[in-house]
Amino acid sequence: MQVAPPPALPLRIVGTGEYCPRRKVPSSAFDARWNKPQGWTERHSGVAWRAVAGADEYASAMGAAAARAALAAAGRDLTDIDCIISACSVMEQPIPCSAALLQRELGLGASGVPAFDVNATCLSFVVALDLVSTLLASGRYRCVLIVSSELPSAGVNPDDPATAPLFGDGAAAVLVEPADPHSGSSVLAARMETYAEAASACQVRACGTRLRIEDGADAFIAGTRFEMDGKAVYRQAAARLPGFLDRLLGLAGLPLAAIDRIIPHQASGKALAHLQRALALPAARMSGILHDHGNQMAASIPAALHHAIQHQGLARGDTVLLIGSGAGMSFGGMVLRY
Amino acid sequence: MQVAPPPALPLRIVGTGEYCPRRKVPSSAFDARWNKPQGWTERHSGVAWRAVAGADEYASAMGAAAARAALAAAGRDLTDIDCIISACSVMEQPIPCSAALLQRELGLGASGVPAFDVNATCLSFVVALDLVSTLLASGRYRCVLIVSSELPSAGVNPDDPATAPLFGDGAAAVLVEPADPHSGSSVLAARMETYAEAASACQVRACGTRLRIEDGADAFIAGTRFEMDGKAVYRQAAARLPGFLDRLLGLAGLPLAAIDRIIPHQASGKALAHLQRALALPAARMSGILHDHGNQMAASIPAALHHAIQHQGLARGDTVLLIGSGAGMSFGGMVLRY
Repeated sequence: MQVAPPPALPLRIVGTGEYCPRRKVPSSAFDARWNKPQGWTERHSGVAWRAVAGADEYASAMGAAAARAALAAAGRDLTDIDCIISACSVMEQPIPCSAALLQRELGLGASGVPAFDVNATCLSFVVALDLVSTLLASGRYRCVLIVSSELPSAGVNPDDPATAPLFGDGAAAVLVEPADPHSGSSVLAARMETYAEAASACQVRACGTRLRIEDGADAFIAGTRFEMDGKAVYRQAAARLPGFLDRLLGLAGLPLAAIDRIIPHQASGKALAHLQRALALPAARMSGILHDHGNQMAASIPAALHHAIQHQGLARGDTVLLIGSGAGMSFGGMVLRY
Repeated sequence: MQVAPPPALPLRIVGTGEYCPRRKVPSSAFDARWNKPQGWTERHSGVAWRAVAGADEYASAMGAAAARAALAAAGRDLTDIDCIISACSVMEQPIPCSAALLQRELGLGASGVPAFDVNATCLSFVVALDLVSTLLASGRYRCVLIVSSELPSAGVNPDDPATAPLFGDGAAAVLVEPADPHSGSSVLAARMETYAEAASACQVRACGTRLRIEDGADAFIAGTRFEMDGKAVYRQAAARLPGFLDRLLGLAGLPLAAIDRIIPHQASGKALAHLQRALALPAARMSGILHDHGNQMAASIPAALHHAIQHQGLARGDTVLLIGSGAGMSFGGMVLRY
């Protein structure tokens, strides 16, 4: 489907940042609610703590805080940004796009800086970074802010032990610029595959144009909750992920052994264990923040990247693999030289 | 903010298509509902007829029909597509993205063809086409399907004479490939400016992560309706559009006189009249489908482009200006050689 490997695209991640909501909910709270033995929720979800956003921690506010942290890390100013991309699963409101709300929140409302959204559910950040690599290569922009800010707490079914404890609210931001040719920073390969035969395996049915409140309040309210068919997701991942990784590494022309740092989507404890086993990934080189963040949907990969840079010694010149799956059902990934 | 003009990017629109729902609503129906004299609604909206989608005409179904028409016009098969982008204002459902639902509807659910959404409300198509131009230039894809499928009927307030009659449901699809170097088909310039100081001038507040049904059913239901502050929109357009057009044409290095065909967003009769007057656009070269389509949000520009090709003699080699505004508030446009 996709063509011969394109040349490496010079791209440099110049700064990253995150924002975690103030209120942290321990897994023991779920144990208590469901009359489970202490430790049950953490063992089943892989999550010990997750944050839940308060009313003042709406998506664009969290996103702006993460963006300011990324700017500070990069030594850049708000005025350096020439494009703002929101890469989230679910929007703050359907109209206008989340990137516009973020622009306003950053105090750039009179700036004219273009702002738009990219959505591939949990893979939104990876798709946005891929798009940015070609935008930078063509000279279209010089300093792009990508922000993923998610509030899964707005959509999870609090009574579903299979999904409710998995998720955490939060935001991550990445500032991207063209790389100096001598720096080596570049995207070596990017790839996405979508298999919509499993489109209903992860879904929120209400709140778009199809299932409407006029269709009945009960049906509508039920449809506002995230639904996951865990077995269907597992089947797709088991069938598709190994081939997907082979094709992605093939595009990069690198073996897995050449990857210094693997940053997987923080889907769940079981998903991460399966990913590692199925792809024979070296655990010591995998980054994870699931334990104290939960699955932050599209913010998971950039937040884990941020932690890898800040706390796990990801260094300039390292070869990094971003990889994950998302509703759709899609598989996405990127090999980049940081 | 944006950098010196990038070189023209070779891009060829190889096929276009549209789908209009079966049920057409005449403006006389609004006159009757509001006890207005015959002709009042058409005079105020600029719309004589608009289509309203039925239950089987959901967004991905309409989008798939438009996509099949575009493939037929291009002489391409489903198997030629190597990327699917949904460029809509409001999603069919929040998860997964609309492009995945479209992929399934096209029978490509096991294909692996990557599918993701781009959202800049009414400018979504223009932003998507801009992104595709750099994706094609980098060799990332070879045949991209862009689909805008909109159901404003799901969100308009049927009791608001200022907005209810303006909109129409429908879908448009455009198939894009890299251009042969000798063909001349290319993007000469693309530009977007966002001024989120006017982000609340056009909005739908409910159905995202911020205003939730738990906040009270009445507030939620009110928030599901499209709200427009017409004066604020007009003020922004009056202040920003002339400079925006100058900057866009400046990037292309062309005067307005060099544009063969102008395809504006079909916002409303008044908006189109203002656009023409403020920018001194030559009426004979402007394409319009507002009269019998209404404002189809992101589908307006690609549907008008389709009509210009099919019915108004837009010919290979012609220089085309796409221009419009959207919620955000954003201005966007592109100069391309068809």
